[in-house]
Amino acid sequence: MPVKITVEKEEKYTRARLGKLSTPHGEVETPIFMPVGTQATVKTMTPEEVHQTGGRLILSNTYHLYLRPGHDLVREAGGLHKFMNWHGPILTDSGGFQVFSLGPLRTITEEGVTFRSHIDGSKHLFTPEKVMEIEQALGADIAMAFDECAPYPCDKEYAIAALERTTRWAERCKKVHNRKDQALFGIIQGGVFNDLRERSAKELLAMDFPGYGIGGLSVGEPKDLMYDVLDHLIPLMPKDKPRYLMGVGSPDCLIEGVIRGVDMFDCVLPTRIARNGTVFTHKGKLTVRNAEFARDFRPMDEQCDCYACQNYSRAYIRHLIKADEILGIRLTTIHNLHFIQQLMENIKDAIRQDRLLQYRQEFLQHFNLG
Amino acid sequence: MPVKITVEKEEKYTRARLGKLSTPHGEVETPIFMPVGTQATVKTMTPEEVHQTGGRLILSNTYHLYLRPGHDLVREAGGLHKFMNWHGPILTDSGGFQVFSLGPLRTITEEGVTFRSHIDGSKHLFTPEKVMEIEQALGADIAMAFDECAPYPCDKEYAIAALERTTRWAERCKKVHNRKDQALFGIIQGGVFNDLRERSAKELLAMDFPGYGIGGLSVGEPKDLMYDVLDHLIPLMPKDKPRYLMGVGSPDCLIEGVIRGVDMFDCVLPTRIARNGTVFTHKGKLTVRNAEFARDFRPMDEQCDCYACQNYSRAYIRHLIKADEILGIRLTTIHNLHFIQQLMENIKDAIRQDRLLQYRQEFLQHFNLG
Repeated sequence: MPVKITVEKEEKYTRARLGKLSTPHGEVETPIFMPVGTQATVKTMTPEEVHQTGGRLILSNTYHLYLRPGHDLVREAGGLHKFMNWHGPILTDSGGFQVFSLGPLRTITEEGVTFRSHIDGSKHLFTPEKVMEIEQALGADIAMAFDECAPYPCDKEYAIAALERTTRWAERCKKVHNRKDQALFGIIQGGVFNDLRERSAKELLAMDFPGYGIGGLSVGEPKDLMYDVLDHLIPLMPKDKPRYLMGVGSPDCLIEGVIRGVDMFDCVLPTRIARNGTVFTHKGKLTVRNAEFARDFRPMDEQCDCYACQNYSRAYIRHLIKADEILGIRLTTIHNLHFIQQLMENIKDAIRQDRLLQYRQEFLQHFNLG
Repeated sequence: MPVKITVEKEEKYTRARLGKLSTPHGEVETPIFMPVGTQATVKTMTPEEVHQTGGRLILSNTYHLYLRPGHDLVREAGGLHKFMNWHGPILTDSGGFQVFSLGPLRTITEEGVTFRSHIDGSKHLFTPEKVMEIEQALGADIAMAFDECAPYPCDKEYAIAALERTTRWAERCKKVHNRKDQALFGIIQGGVFNDLRERSAKELLAMDFPGYGIGGLSVGEPKDLMYDVLDHLIPLMPKDKPRYLMGVGSPDCLIEGVIRGVDMFDCVLPTRIARNGTVFTHKGKLTVRNAEFARDFRPMDEQCDCYACQNYSRAYIRHLIKADEILGIRLTTIHNLHFIQQLMENIKDAIRQDRLLQYRQEFLQHFNLG
């Protein structure tokens, strides 16, 4: 098995667990947050900077890399790790979420999804077999199976059809996936219907994937519904396999996900809001580009020890962003990723001490969710 | 004197010289190339990265900082060094070049220049006194006097009027400049007329500034004309004061300028062309964003040991630039500044060995000026 989780501690009062995830590109601690490097780069950052913020495993997007620069080119370059100069582990998604998000630009059949490129309108077909060809060419440590991600809201009939297709496509993915230094993870679907989640889990677990994604959440449903799905689904999942909650990355959802037994997360949120001039602080979000910070010479977060907060003021960062200077969004990105990775460190410490519920309370006491 | 040059060696066969420029923020070696940080940031870079490429003294723009974020705000922040987290010396230009470049947006009188902001069209007046107020608020180690930079081509009558006004404005600048930890440099004008250059030099030298800029060159005239001006002008300048050739930064002009006795240079060229996807190599310029490099897995310059060339291929950098990923222009910027600073190191070595003319020949043998 190229990828394997070793659970080192289960928390006393929740389903949270500490583990080590071993991969062909090294071992990482779980629970883990994976920064997103959509186009073979975590936006604005060097790999060294990603590492300095605490990033150890990054996600890259099959859909985007297939369109540009093309998976053949990445293979010729020696694979994604070498191409982008990231020496740690990488996970590639399957492109399923992206192509389903294209809406009118795509049509779904049993064979796969036909879609038009968001870049030039050219026509393409993603089948499970094609996606495996792409992901194997990219050569990440973990590849995700091609799934159908149902939207929210979505009626039960549609959710059933999507989960059944996801199972059939998972079988097709497994059949053609043969890269020995890459683990293929299945993706559990079923929308917000607990019985469908159970059915999807049962069908995919029977295929014995080395890890499982939980897809189709964080797509617009209320957080309580997501937590409810996790409460019911995760006890059905094997303890000796990694559990990856896809597309989740707000501070509160990270804590709640870990409490429910999630090992892996990814999300564009911290990097995306950074580029809009919004940063996390221990008190909640702060839009540093706002006029009120023009003469505020304090760091973005006074409790933060990241490079940006140690060296630059809100006033300076606001100036940079208003003047369209790239250093501005570099600094907000560094800060936000550092903030999230520091949160993951705190979560792991809390698990070690069997005080994760207490930590959640302490965190939320200060952090304004508004 | 807050700023002073100590000439440590004069080359045997040219007017080139090695020196140490002492400033309130430390000593730097000359001849020196100053990267430009127009809006209190060298575009795309952190101060640490500027330093890693070999940058030791940076230039920032009075015109831009006055408009945004405003010199009062920078003073409140503790001055430009603290605001932008650059601990080495800084030079600010006078805004003269910028406001004269505004063309129809400005009118010149004896009092000063009335102009409209390129950002919001608001009306402003730069007088020598106002510019001194701004530059003293910014607090750079070196401030430039407010001058009138004549365009090229320009008739002699206009060039005379501009140089006379530059002299009168230099007197007004000197009269109000009183910041003890900042040196005020005069600027020699006179277009491409050697007799006018001589006159401008004589008038400004009589005011005994601690250093002199050579303005109004590299504004579109043929290089040979610029070299001719330097050949005639520099022997008239004092040996014990720094000589700063403003706005020059192409590799060949740097070598030619040093040969003629210049100590300091600045230019946006290396950083600007980097953002357009063009880089210097030992063979000449290379536009890495061009299609021909899509599958070229070699570094930008195979003889370069910069961070970008040690870790990334032309194919990857081209991909980043085509995909509008910021890391792309970060890497080209790092490379170009490293290239220019390495050139300055090679120039200094050649002076040390009295072989600068030979070095020029060796460099130009490989470097395609096209």
